Amino acid sequence: MPVISHRGAMMPPSPIRKLVPFADAAKKRGIKVYHLNIGQPDIVTPPSILDAVRHTDMTVLEYSPSAGFDSYRKKLVEYYKRNDIDVTANQIIVTTGGSEAIMFAIMSCLDAGDEIIIPEPFYANYNGFSTSSGVKVVPIPSSIESGFALPAIEAFEKAITPQTKAIMICNPNNPTGYLYSMDELNVLKEICLKHDLFLFSDEAYREFCYDGSKHISAMSIPGLEEHAILLDTISKRYSACGGRIGAFVTRNQQVLDAAMKFAQARLSPPTFAQILGEAAVDLPADYFDEVHAEYTSRRDVLVDRLKKLDGVLCPLPGGAFYAMAQLPVENAERFCQWLLEDFSHNGATVMMAPAAGFYATPGKGRNEVRMAYVLNKEDINGAMDCLEAALKVYKN
Amino acid sequence: MPVISHRGAMMPPSPIRKLVPFADAAKKRGIKVYHLNIGQPDIVTPPSILDAVRHTDMTVLEYSPSAGFDSYRKKLVEYYKRNDIDVTANQIIVTTGGSEAIMFAIMSCLDAGDEIIIPEPFYANYNGFSTSSGVKVVPIPSSIESGFALPAIEAFEKAITPQTKAIMICNPNNPTGYLYSMDELNVLKEICLKHDLFLFSDEAYREFCYDGSKHISAMSIPGLEEHAILLDTISKRYSACGGRIGAFVTRNQQVLDAAMKFAQARLSPPTFAQILGEAAVDLPADYFDEVHAEYTSRRDVLVDRLKKLDGVLCPLPGGAFYAMAQLPVENAERFCQWLLEDFSHNGATVMMAPAAGFYATPGKGRNEVRMAYVLNKEDINGAMDCLEAALKVYKN
Repeated sequence: MPVISHRGAMMPPSPIRKLVPFADAAKKRGIKVYHLNIGQPDIVTPPSILDAVRHTDMTVLEYSPSAGFDSYRKKLVEYYKRNDIDVTANQIIVTTGGSEAIMFAIMSCLDAGDEIIIPEPFYANYNGFSTSSGVKVVPIPSSIESGFALPAIEAFEKAITPQTKAIMICNPNNPTGYLYSMDELNVLKEICLKHDLFLFSDEAYREFCYDGSKHISAMSIPGLEEHAILLDTISKRYSACGGRIGAFVTRNQQVLDAAMKFAQARLSPPTFAQILGEAAVDLPADYFDEVHAEYTSRRDVLVDRLKKLDGVLCPLPGGAFYAMAQLPVENAERFCQWLLEDFSHNGATVMMAPAAGFYATPGKGRNEVRMAYVLNKEDINGAMDCLEAALKVYKN
Repeated sequence: MPVISHRGAMMPPSPIRKLVPFADAAKKRGIKVYHLNIGQPDIVTPPSILDAVRHTDMTVLEYSPSAGFDSYRKKLVEYYKRNDIDVTANQIIVTTGGSEAIMFAIMSCLDAGDEIIIPEPFYANYNGFSTSSGVKVVPIPSSIESGFALPAIEAFEKAITPQTKAIMICNPNNPTGYLYSMDELNVLKEICLKHDLFLFSDEAYREFCYDGSKHISAMSIPGLEEHAILLDTISKRYSACGGRIGAFVTRNQQVLDAAMKFAQARLSPPTFAQILGEAAVDLPADYFDEVHAEYTSRRDVLVDRLKKLDGVLCPLPGGAFYAMAQLPVENAERFCQWLLEDFSHNGATVMMAPAAGFYATPGKGRNEVRMAYVLNKEDINGAMDCLEAALKVYKN
């Protein structure tokens, strides 16, 4: 019998994978499961952009250009300009989701054996894409006690080796909800310029910044023109996760040329969702106002409820739609499984993502969970009712 | 300035990339360019399957499951059964185009430094995906003189090393149009079983077999259950290239488990085109009759015209919609460029793919071109008029 590859064996499974069968079993028993475990918003996709797909008059569903439709890339230039990101259509490659943009960045800038520094906890799939391409993730710790602020510059300096080629951030952050400040971005700039490192900036949640804070893109930092690579997606922005449309954006021509060859190898990004993405750029400016208000109030409900729970620590997230919480349990993964397997409250229970899957350092985050506030307030309250009751039972 | 990766630098560009600016310039000069250079069919996408997308009543464009919608995978079981491929829904992972299925196969089965044997000429992007994952392509020669039949078993034996993990075929073949016989598939079976190699079988053109020949899938060969991996796509089958929906199919559970982790890392395949793909399985059986008749007559027109040209050799393709032709020129790439740059006939010229890009061995295929008969017969005749006139001029 032929044997699978080492990388196939080593690929990390999804952090919630082990819990899925327990969630399915709970549903089979008739228990309602509040899904705070994944970033699938319940927000309605703007009907006008779905209509753009419904009203296509194409007769042949052709390949688009490998970099994406010209018309869409030109529209994206407008979108980015509105967000203080000044790029040309030629500096944008439309990708199959943000996932492919991450892949293109790793493939174009790092070889097998090279190292990428990522503040942990981080989006678990960075690990998967690094494993699949032989790249080593070097985590540097951020902590729930400091609200997941960027680690000090010394931590970066200590982690850098001759193999270090890039630093990766997610801003605002998944899973922590942390929004980086200009001072923090300037630390990253200093490090990247000093050591000639790429800065990969995953800005999937750009629009989701709270309390009057403004998002600062890595693409807007003067001096990082050759270093910054923006990884983007329409998935969260327009509640269009299934479209699989993202973008790889950089001003570095060598990187663009390399990424274009990876783009050509896979032929083209999906046509239908490019039509949707193009229509989305023309959504009225107040579209985000409503969405923004909704997420702000969901965040507030979630965090207020968590703060009232004994022994729970939850820093107020400044962006994205995730909150990390430390729970008064020893092993959050076991607790999450117990919630699905052995617990219910008023016929319901809650599914959360154990945070250990977002740390690369073994043992870290064991008593933390990530919650995505992608449900409406009634459901968030329902989920918190469950959590509150569960913690009381579980402690005994 | 930070430096791009070695793999980014080494990625092979598309075989026609150099010609594109010349084609664009020709069009700007008002010259009609017959595109025989890429496999983008002009066949209308069945309106009923486009309508399935137009009539979706979704309100949230959600992620699909990483393996694809259950309903679609169940439909695909029906489709495969009709094609003598007996698999379950759990043995199918829906992919983002055939491209991603190729990636999953390479990633799941080969590590960097491992080798994959591919009869050349072959689909150029096999090389790209291998390069990006550090895998070495070991070509074994098939030749235009033998009509691109499978190389003899001795050629495989000679090419096998301890690093060899897989053999890859495309059946019917792009770029040669060759359709493998049962005897040839049995040779592959013997080799794979003897040396415990995976057999990757790209069957994108399954429906396009001519002259009464029947396609035999690698998945239908008894004894290869643990070795065969089917790489599939709806792109050519339903003229749906822009959908980006394919499939990775195998009965090998370890391979499936590994591929699922790669699938989870990229979250999900595109939702819209899965809806289209699902509708396509219900197309009436006579859908392919018409398409098949059209491609057969296009092939016949193309090959008949080529055979009448002095010094041109073109084996009759048994499948797919490509023909390879040897031309009475020394350097086909230079000839193709000349056709776009310096030649026109009745205000038109023809663009073909120089075949050297489909060979891994340097120097091979230099006087060959690949032609895709994806245009209607009038245009194919127009293209052949150009080629005929061009060869007369070019020789002098």
